[in-house]
Amino acid sequence: MRKPIIAPSILSADFARLGEEVEAVIAAGADWVHFDVMDNHYVPNLTIGPMVCKALRNHGIEAPIDVHLMVKPVDRIIPDFAEAGASIITFHPEASEHIDRSLQLIRDSGCQAGLVFNPATPIHYLEHVMDKLDVILLMSVNPGFGGQSFIPQTLNKLKQVRSLIDNSGYDIRLEVDGGVKVDNIGEIAAAGADAFVAGSAIFNAEDYQATIESMRQNITKAVGA
Amino acid sequence: MRKPIIAPSILSADFARLGEEVEAVIAAGADWVHFDVMDNHYVPNLTIGPMVCKALRNHGIEAPIDVHLMVKPVDRIIPDFAEAGASIITFHPEASEHIDRSLQLIRDSGCQAGLVFNPATPIHYLEHVMDKLDVILLMSVNPGFGGQSFIPQTLNKLKQVRSLIDNSGYDIRLEVDGGVKVDNIGEIAAAGADAFVAGSAIFNAEDYQATIESMRQNITKAVGA
Amino acid sequence: MRKPIIAPSILSADFARLGEEVEAVIAAGADWVHFDVMDNHYVPNLTIGPMVCKALRNHGIEAPIDVHLMVKPVDRIIPDFAEAGASIITFHPEASEHIDRSLQLIRDSGCQAGLVFNPATPIHYLEHVMDKLDVILLMSVNPGFGGQSFIPQTLNKLKQVRSLIDNSGYDIRLEVDGGVKVDNIGEIAAAGADAFVAGSAIFNAEDYQATIESMRQNITKAVGA
Amino acid sequence: MRKPIIAPSILSADFARLGEEVEAVIAAGADWVHFDVMDNHYVPNLTIGPMVCKALRNHGIEAPIDVHLMVKPVDRIIPDFAEAGASIITFHPEASEHIDRSLQLIRDSGCQAGLVFNPATPIHYLEHVMDKLDVILLMSVNPGFGGQSFIPQTLNKLKQVRSLIDNSGYDIRLEVDGGVKVDNIGEIAAAGADAFVAGSAIFNAEDYQATIESMRQNITKAVGA
Amino acid sequence: MRKPIIAPSILSADFARLGEEVEAVIAAGADWVHFDVMDNHYVPNLTIGPMVCKALRNHGIEAPIDVHLMVKPVDRIIPDFAEAGASIITFHPEASEHIDRSLQLIRDSGCQAGLVFNPATPIHYLEHVMDKLDVILLMSVNPGFGGQSFIPQTLNKLKQVRSLIDNSGYDIRLEVDGGVKVDNIGEIAAAGADAFVAGSAIFNAEDYQATIESMRQNITKAVGA
Amino acid sequence: MRKPIIAPSILSADFARLGEEVEAVIAAGADWVHFDVMDNHYVPNLTIGPMVCKALRNHGIEAPIDVHLMVKPVDRIIPDFAEAGASIITFHPEASEHIDRSLQLIRDSGCQAGLVFNPATPIHYLEHVMDKLDVILLMSVNPGFGGQSFIPQTLNKLKQVRSLIDNSGYDIRLEVDGGVKVDNIGEIAAAGADAFVAGSAIFNAEDYQATIESMRQNITKAVGA
Repeated sequence: MRKPIIAPSILSADFARLGEEVEAVIAAGADWVHFDVMDNHYVPNLTIGPMVCKALRNHGIEAPIDVHLMVKPVDRIIPDFAEAGASIITFHPEASEHIDRSLQLIRDSGCQAGLVFNPATPIHYLEHVMDKLDVILLMSVNPGFGGQSFIPQTLNKLKQVRSLIDNSGYDIRLEVDGGVKVDNIGEIAAAGADAFVAGSAIFNAEDYQATIESMRQNITKAVGA
Repeated sequence: MRKPIIAPSILSADFARLGEEVEAVIAAGADWVHFDVMDNHYVPNLTIGPMVCKALRNHGIEAPIDVHLMVKPVDRIIPDFAEAGASIITFHPEASEHIDRSLQLIRDSGCQAGLVFNPATPIHYLEHVMDKLDVILLMSVNPGFGGQSFIPQTLNKLKQVRSLIDNSGYDIRLEVDGGVKVDNIGEIAAAGADAFVAGSAIFNAEDYQATIESMRQNITKAVGA
Repeated sequence: MRKPIIAPSILSADFARLGEEVEAVIAAGADWVHFDVMDNHYVPNLTIGPMVCKALRNHGIEAPIDVHLMVKPVDRIIPDFAEAGASIITFHPEASEHIDRSLQLIRDSGCQAGLVFNPATPIHYLEHVMDKLDVILLMSVNPGFGGQSFIPQTLNKLKQVRSLIDNSGYDIRLEVDGGVKVDNIGEIAAAGADAFVAGSAIFNAEDYQATIESMRQNITKAVGA
Repeated sequence: MRKPIIAPSILSADFARLGEEVEAVIAAGADWVHFDVMDNHYVPNLTIGPMVCKALRNHGIEAPIDVHLMVKPVDRIIPDFAEAGASIITFHPEASEHIDRSLQLIRDSGCQAGLVFNPATPIHYLEHVMDKLDVILLMSVNPGFGGQSFIPQTLNKLKQVRSLIDNSGYDIRLEVDGGVKVDNIGEIAAAGADAFVAGSAIFNAEDYQATIESMRQNITKAVGA
Repeated sequence: MRKPIIAPSILSADFARLGEEVEAVIAAGADWVHFDVMDNHYVPNLTIGPMVCKALRNHGIEAPIDVHLMVKPVDRIIPDFAEAGASIITFHPEASEHIDRSLQLIRDSGCQAGLVFNPATPIHYLEHVMDKLDVILLMSVNPGFGGQSFIPQTLNKLKQVRSLIDNSGYDIRLEVDGGVKVDNIGEIAAAGADAFVAGSAIFNAEDYQATIESMRQNITKAVGA
Repeated sequence: MRKPIIAPSILSADFARLGEEVEAVIAAGADWVHFDVMDNHYVPNLTIGPMVCKALRNHGIEAPIDVHLMVKPVDRIIPDFAEAGASIITFHPEASEHIDRSLQLIRDSGCQAGLVFNPATPIHYLEHVMDKLDVILLMSVNPGFGGQSFIPQTLNKLKQVRSLIDNSGYDIRLEVDGGVKVDNIGEIAAAGADAFVAGSAIFNAEDYQATIESMRQNITKAVGA
């Protein structure tokens, strides 16, 4: 297993002092900044867009910014995020009429590309595009709705996708988002994930660094990474 | 004329340290915080949503937050902004099938309500709802598109709406947004505006306070307020 | 003034025995059956469609059925309602890209045609189609939302439209819908309406006939019709 | 096999006396009331909504009401039907961006939940939500279009889904809708269905009870249930 | 009055030999090529797009190409038509959320800009953009539907718009489209039009040149131009 | 293998003399005319519609016209193309809510029916409709976007679909569209295709006949057909 990625979701950060918050989690050992974009159409909420991403870059953040588009359609805004400093851009297959084209557009814009799967979304959308993916993100809650906990069926889905990735021979991150905590991250890693989005589990903790370290330890216990 | 309102648009602020930025403009004499919400559907951009509004309130900002919805449709997100601390919520008449209902929903949520007019939008949408309006906002650029300057025809439209307001007997603010600068604000006030959104003119200035004071002086010169 | 029309809205009837309910209000003196069609898109509710209209005709109802389409778009369903026995079909101008065409389609289907105006909708949509209208319906509440009372501004709007009709020389009914009760129907008639939709005011009354008669008496007191 | 369910579709009943019609089929031995909701968007027809469902409950109908949503999107109207007395709510996976969430919403509203598959819809949508389903409904005609007969390929699909259900260990009804008649119901049961929607086959019959009994006998002959 | 413009609509030409057809009408005295673009969404038909426009330019056609967009939305395709050689681009105000912006986009692309009014569309959309218009096109039939004749109310609307143009002081063409024939063109010119789209009246005529000349003569008789 | 079909796409022909162009490719040995319909919604381009198809028939073209609908939705325009002379109509499964119904509608209109798969679209949409298909078209580029070359993964997908067809026992053409050239057509045929759309490879060639013959020879070399 490759080095596990810890990606704090800034949805749980303090938006009044976002630069400082992001600096703090990076200093505490986070690998990526997870950036949740909602448009009030694909999901019933509206969060933050390219200008906020750009502000983080201007503030000096150099860590990879992992943009999760919960928007529909996706093509128009992809170049905006690339220009704003995104490193990775992922979208939902149901949100693009032309999935292969959108993946190419992300890569042509200089970013890494990925697909995101809602809890019920079949993974068959992966079949013909494995060579165009850098990340596969499985949602373990329903995106855009509050107050949910980790959906247990995600563990089976992680195993299925882990197997697909390993058989493909491609170098693809398997990311998971939703209800990831210190006490279940080991089990999630054991199911095949190697990138972990955590929001409140990190930003609501008293000590970011201790939390991230506990997460890493539990991953190591589970998979030896 | 009532006391003129200066409402800096936080779209031009630094989103990495937004709390600090807003504190600074309020300390420099701004009256309202103008909050531009774009959903990548009604306009080709996506900015900030209720969570950012809430973060400003949690940060201690007490000034009125003036939320301009450039989203379509509008009803679902109105209560979210009311709960997030919005003081005023305005929307475009083309963005709601049920304008009267949306205005009532804003007031029922405890906020002041207003309609926003794109440069070409006829003002006839005002005719049957003057009693339900606290603010009328005239766009003097096309919302959601960058690099524009004040559209001169807005001056005539301001005069028309000023006349409608004065004849109605209702206490309605006449706000203008787009390309407002120190050197044209007097002319705009003379045409009838009494609330002025300014973005880069304030946030890109070296000295927020001096800029806001210059704006107030030019308004006073023009209309004696 | 022509004979006033009383049109009970079957939305307030008992849908488990709709034929009987409609027979009862017709026997009690109602002139038209008002038939509210909502599609869960134009308004946030879904009510009844052409099959229910057809069932009333098959049940022997001969009174005019006045179909108010709160649907968007409108063209596909117009012929369905004509075949199902509708007498009058009205729609909202915002709900058709081609208003003139939709009006012609209604008349070509053998029905009378009309436009409906939401409380905030400007009446300018009437300007170029007065010759194609049999009915103008002004909403005095927001359609599709419950628990509302008569919006007072409707009285001014009624006067404006009454004047437009009288000046046009066309034989057009001026209908009003929303919060019409025994105790305000006189005032509404005085403002120019000559067709009155009433839902709960009739169907929730103990005695349909007495209620309809009280309505007629109050109209007569007000306008002498 | 569990007791087979016979669910008459009230689309074929007389809407002018719906309470009486439903009482009659229940008295004649029907198990569920099948309630077809069309919104003129997901399908080209508009039928009946929550108020009609509520009227049946107010009329004293106690049998399970099995609501088939042929609407898109589905989330807004789900609580309306739950409040109106629905027992089961099913929807099409293509009609919700967030299938897992919609299923949870149905259960959280106190109803049983299910997915409906159009004739061509792949059954892969089932893969990650078997634990959230009470009913799987296979359409054996295209919903919303008239004059069709049972599509024979449904028999293979029934066998596939029957196998999925049996392997899952979950207690899920396998329902079929479209062209079900006395003379093909045995073959359909043999393919794995254990809930049968029938419209004209029941409501157009002279004797509801004899028809339902014939259906049950043919099921028993075919599968011994 | 300025020289009247005769603009044959190529919808009535033979699309199998379109270059030749357009050459013939230009040789016969036509001024502009009228190019009707339908997208099967704004109107229920799909016609021709930018590639066909480009083919005419490549074929050597030098006359102004007058592109009437019956599409919604309009902004994405405007630059495509400008690059394909369009001279004038007009669109319906209902088809753009940002009318002022779309007009500017057309001019910034190097074309002349205009608004088109459906028969029922109020002309108030003109009020704040007279300085951005080169053409105002009034539809005298409903666009996208076949078999219609000239709607007589268009004559009044032409007079109203003629008056607006004359009072504005701007140099704006007043174009009319739908049911224009040799025998009504005089009356239409008298109402204020100075650009005339004709489809079947020209392309179905035996002699293009004679028809166009008759049109010009009847205009001259009517208005002396 | 059946006789391979060569289907020149008229998107690469000269639209100013389309009849002549199509006559030339048919004379040069082409089997079908491939007709690409884009609506500026399902894909970001707008091309040609039923009137152009009709013009080809009126011009005397008797070859099968193979209409590829890149439009959404599809049902309304299917009968238009059937009346305009289409022989085959294919559409994307994502573009119809009711795939089975749309396939039946095509056949009921007297045409052959097919489904088209975007590069990333899973082939599971085929599972329940193999008996209703005359053609399966695999896109080897993303439709509606220019400047692309053949996507190599299409070869695997062709093999999968070839196997499905052979196992089904149905007589279904396997067509491929995008980046097909003389020098890769053999490899594509070897993967299972037996109908080949080629645009610029044919229309940009100096000699249509020599190109089509080279294509046929390379197919024969590859598969012996």
